[in-house]
Amino acid sequence: MSTTKTRPKVGILGGGQLGRMLLQAAANYHVETFVLENDSECPAAHLCHHFTKGDIRDFDAVYNFGKGLDAITIEIENVNVEALEKLESEGVKVFPKPSVLKTIKNKILQKQYYKEHQIPTSDFKITNHYAEIAEMEDFLPGVHKLGEGGYDGRGVQIINTKSDISKGFEKPAILEKMVVIDKEIAIIIAINEKNETAIYPPVTMVFDPDLNLLDYQLSPSELVQQVLWKIEAVALAVVRNFKSPGIFAVELFIDKKGDVFVNETAPRVHNSGHHTIEAHYSSQFDMLWRVMLGYPLGNTRFILPSLMLNIIGANGYSGDVVYEGLEEVLKIENAFVHIYGKKQTKPGRKMGHITILSNEKQDLLHKANKIKHGLIVKSV
Amino acid sequence: MSTTKTRPKVGILGGGQLGRMLLQAAANYHVETFVLENDSECPAAHLCHHFTKGDIRDFDAVYNFGKGLDAITIEIENVNVEALEKLESEGVKVFPKPSVLKTIKNKILQKQYYKEHQIPTSDFKITNHYAEIAEMEDFLPGVHKLGEGGYDGRGVQIINTKSDISKGFEKPAILEKMVVIDKEIAIIIAINEKNETAIYPPVTMVFDPDLNLLDYQLSPSELVQQVLWKIEAVALAVVRNFKSPGIFAVELFIDKKGDVFVNETAPRVHNSGHHTIEAHYSSQFDMLWRVMLGYPLGNTRFILPSLMLNIIGANGYSGDVVYEGLEEVLKIENAFVHIYGKKQTKPGRKMGHITILSNEKQDLLHKANKIKHGLIVKSV
Repeated sequence: MSTTKTRPKVGILGGGQLGRMLLQAAANYHVETFVLENDSECPAAHLCHHFTKGDIRDFDAVYNFGKGLDAITIEIENVNVEALEKLESEGVKVFPKPSVLKTIKNKILQKQYYKEHQIPTSDFKITNHYAEIAEMEDFLPGVHKLGEGGYDGRGVQIINTKSDISKGFEKPAILEKMVVIDKEIAIIIAINEKNETAIYPPVTMVFDPDLNLLDYQLSPSELVQQVLWKIEAVALAVVRNFKSPGIFAVELFIDKKGDVFVNETAPRVHNSGHHTIEAHYSSQFDMLWRVMLGYPLGNTRFILPSLMLNIIGANGYSGDVVYEGLEEVLKIENAFVHIYGKKQTKPGRKMGHITILSNEKQDLLHKANKIKHGLIVKSV
Repeated sequence: MSTTKTRPKVGILGGGQLGRMLLQAAANYHVETFVLENDSECPAAHLCHHFTKGDIRDFDAVYNFGKGLDAITIEIENVNVEALEKLESEGVKVFPKPSVLKTIKNKILQKQYYKEHQIPTSDFKITNHYAEIAEMEDFLPGVHKLGEGGYDGRGVQIINTKSDISKGFEKPAILEKMVVIDKEIAIIIAINEKNETAIYPPVTMVFDPDLNLLDYQLSPSELVQQVLWKIEAVALAVVRNFKSPGIFAVELFIDKKGDVFVNETAPRVHNSGHHTIEAHYSSQFDMLWRVMLGYPLGNTRFILPSLMLNIIGANGYSGDVVYEGLEEVLKIENAFVHIYGKKQTKPGRKMGHITILSNEKQDLLHKANKIKHGLIVKSV
């Protein structure tokens, strides 16, 4: 029988909604929590034991924050990796390891990682100037992605024909051959320090073609057994080859033939796992605490099928937020509302999410539709 | 369609585990949270937006804390009711109303309330000196309960025969005729400002006869339909007659004949509702926020049957806490651990709780037994 030591100290770099939900889950465990973030009114600031105002991209800020902690994790990849490496060398456990962040935050290195480990991904070429695309006609239509600094849709350009080439980037980037996508899938896998893994059922992400934003997400994905196995095997290969404990969200494309391509990986809790809070026995947030605190992995099975949709700032509204129609949404049976506590809305900003539970897919879609038309995030 | 106003400010008097779990649930909503508590390292202190160190029994502390809030609630009855009355008169919403706290915190007034509203409860007599019991022989065996100031087993004496009389109290108290209990039941009911009610399924509480502490609790209770209806009707009468929005836990005895007696009522979230976090669609904590924020009431149905047991400080250990065997417990499928973050343990102190979900009663009891023997709360 093991004895759990007195309260470990764990820090989070970043204080957005992922930090907020991590801290909600942390309050079930014996742990002292720390957050580093520039905005002292961020969604996670008031839910930790110790808040530090500071820049997660700054070496000194991250190093000074991390010294003396038992473990540290991230809610965004864009952090000072050098400081994390120094902390790791001094005995602080970092989830995921800094080496993983180095690979993932640069899309060129990330693509090379997949290639090196025989992980199926779309073909790609490296470019330094957009003019180079002119010699890559067999790669068109393609997607040009900035190596570093892209985020939430920025740093990505579709190059359909030669005439689009000037939309490309003048910095190190990759040109990916476009995959004709039948389905977009995300799968979350946790891996602990003993190399044990826990795999959540894959989810299907449905995008709004106009906004290029997630419209809604269904769990579990409806997949033939063979494709499910392929996804699990591929995602496990992605995660295992990193040789790092943590939690990982692997996003994949499936084409009409049932071939699977890894799109990208997030080495952290992820938007595609929010439904696990209510719909699964152990949520992604609970699971990461289990990994970081050295506890046994949790149960990834779902209790009920679910649909998750983000609550997004409406176009044309910026400023102090109001939620129009929230009360109508709260009347919907088994719709679980999460408001992230951001004071200000702006168009496209993620302000919250809603998870709906039901055994009936039609019921999930019907309720999601009601919410999409009933809830509008405005400013006062 | 309604527009939710900019973030309401809600305060909690007391910062123990009930406050902690209320604040975990609050982070799903658009609300600014405040806690008043003497111990700045209490379980809830780090989970609110604004913590105030102060005595919840002190008029000025409570009044100054509550001024400027939109609403205020309690996690313990033993608060300064006069300050809450003044706040209420100045427009702060108080859940429950101060008038309810006045009735409930005094066991004599509470008993008279039941009698006045024709709510079945054990027969009782009021005493000022224990010697008066000598003239109440037809009430023995009985239970002598201090009017004010009793808590968690203190302020209660069993008077079996005349020879026990000197165990009684020399202050205003009640002598209750002992009920031969077949089952102890708790039922939670929420009531909002529109007088709408939401009733959770009753739970059966099983007590440890040696420690006089809750051993475990099963949800839902196994009751014949007629008794279930009686319990619901009686508990609804208790709650409705208070004429106050809030959440209420009504504890009842059932005797062998199926007669129902109200034992006592807590006008707040309660230990007997902890299982609702994982086992029900809307937890008692979520429900109280819905009441306080003027949202529609939540769904009280259970997702799966459950068993809840408290994690109690072991005898012989006082000081900085360690949880021996916690990792073994975390391996048990669908056992949800809640550690309250108290730094110090002492014998009998509530340090956390565990909820187990299963469709099989034998599985619940088997796992509970494993936990009871595997998890020991010690000091370093």
